[in-house]
Amino acid sequence: MMDRTHSIIAKLRVKPGERVKLKERDPRDSSLFGDEQDTKAATATLAEDIDVLQDSLYAEGSRALLVVLQGTDTSGKDGTIRSVFNATGPLGVSVTAFGTPTKTELAHDYLWRVHAACPRRGTIGIFNRSHYEDVLIAKVRNFASKKAIEQRYDQINAFEKMLVENGTTILKFMLHISKDEQKERLQERLDDPRKHWKFNPGDLEDRNYWDEYQGAYETMLHRCSTGHAPWYVIPADRKWVRNAAIASIVKATLEEMDPQYPKASWKPNDFAIP
Amino acid sequence: MMDRTHSIIAKLRVKPGERVKLKERDPRDSSLFGDEQDTKAATATLAEDIDVLQDSLYAEGSRALLVVLQGTDTSGKDGTIRSVFNATGPLGVSVTAFGTPTKTELAHDYLWRVHAACPRRGTIGIFNRSHYEDVLIAKVRNFASKKAIEQRYDQINAFEKMLVENGTTILKFMLHISKDEQKERLQERLDDPRKHWKFNPGDLEDRNYWDEYQGAYETMLHRCSTGHAPWYVIPADRKWVRNAAIASIVKATLEEMDPQYPKASWKPNDFAIP
Repeated sequence: MMDRTHSIIAKLRVKPGERVKLKERDPRDSSLFGDEQDTKAATATLAEDIDVLQDSLYAEGSRALLVVLQGTDTSGKDGTIRSVFNATGPLGVSVTAFGTPTKTELAHDYLWRVHAACPRRGTIGIFNRSHYEDVLIAKVRNFASKKAIEQRYDQINAFEKMLVENGTTILKFMLHISKDEQKERLQERLDDPRKHWKFNPGDLEDRNYWDEYQGAYETMLHRCSTGHAPWYVIPADRKWVRNAAIASIVKATLEEMDPQYPKASWKPNDFAIP
Repeated sequence: MMDRTHSIIAKLRVKPGERVKLKERDPRDSSLFGDEQDTKAATATLAEDIDVLQDSLYAEGSRALLVVLQGTDTSGKDGTIRSVFNATGPLGVSVTAFGTPTKTELAHDYLWRVHAACPRRGTIGIFNRSHYEDVLIAKVRNFASKKAIEQRYDQINAFEKMLVENGTTILKFMLHISKDEQKERLQERLDDPRKHWKFNPGDLEDRNYWDEYQGAYETMLHRCSTGHAPWYVIPADRKWVRNAAIASIVKATLEEMDPQYPKASWKPNDFAIP
């Protein structure tokens, strides 16, 4: 792993038990990277490397990578997926977006739909929002009792530990944007008719709860960044920084997993193709 | 639609009721395209266009596109997906590979797992193999009675008609390769240690049934190329021809669907972002 990746991980990873103050993490920080154009080019190369590593992961067929993307509206979850994972493509990557639970989903525990969407061995699964909504919006908007929310942190840790012990590596990225940046991005959706469909008047209501959400994120980071499934707080006001940071961490994680092409149980000379 | 795309569709689409003789369709044919390098560059542009069209499809949110890829081992299903759909990426495209049915799947009718995997509105779904295996391998290897197989053609047509009437456009591509080309590609898998994992000794057994498979494909094309869900026979010995043909047809189909960004029910000036 390169020195720069070490610094990125050291700076952005939330240590188990750490109490992150989001106000002290600058969403516009670009100090981990150099020139913008060079960094964009490097990210494109990282995306190609991730594709190559996923190919071995697929060939190996015994482990999976789960990437959780959480962040407020407009924080750039879709953009991250395009930048980091399009080179790998739909053959190796599945994306699940978690929206308001359906009636059927609500008829089960909150992890039921999440478990069903976990990536199969050999693939990369991306959660666009996730079970963490159940300690974020559910907490801020009181969709569950305080006691139920409180229990969920440990439940989630246990669930993720089980996934890890059964061969799924987990990376969790919080896309950290500033309230000002969100304003700009929401305004863009109003100004550009092609983006109107992305604008949901209800998002403005959530914006009124900005501080409560930041508080819920801080509790989530404190309670659920574990040794087995760490959270990273990604400075996300600058898209190129966000993409570069996530691509670096994903690549380093896959390298550490070190997937291997399986050895054949036969010898090439055993076969003559008719 | 451009003239070239018209010719591609006219030449490769199987008309309802048509009896295709696969021996009369040259898998190495490249007469629909010009220079190889120019064609590859044009395919990359088509892939970008498909991404843009899928974005409108997603915004519109009311229809889906289902792309069925069928072909013998090594016919290039994975390669097609990478070439035509990586620009759109995993956010807009989901791939389902259908392998040997599991016990749970076998406990249902053969269309059950297929229906569950159909693309949600706004997205492109790709079937890497499909329900057509149930009239191909199932027929050649006698996995079902003759009567059951015979019934399936009409069942499949009715199932696909229902999908189309409910908003899913269907494109079906048979990747047509020659027996010699398959030999070369299988040999590559034996010769290149990085490709060993792709080689399945059982594939050689299927190769012994080459003519029976070609016959089953011909029946399938005859019985199931319908006005609502046409089959295309794609010359697939040359990868660049295969990719160019499929990208052209997918783009033309999306253009014909003509997805529209929805009109907002509000006016931008209705909102001031706090």
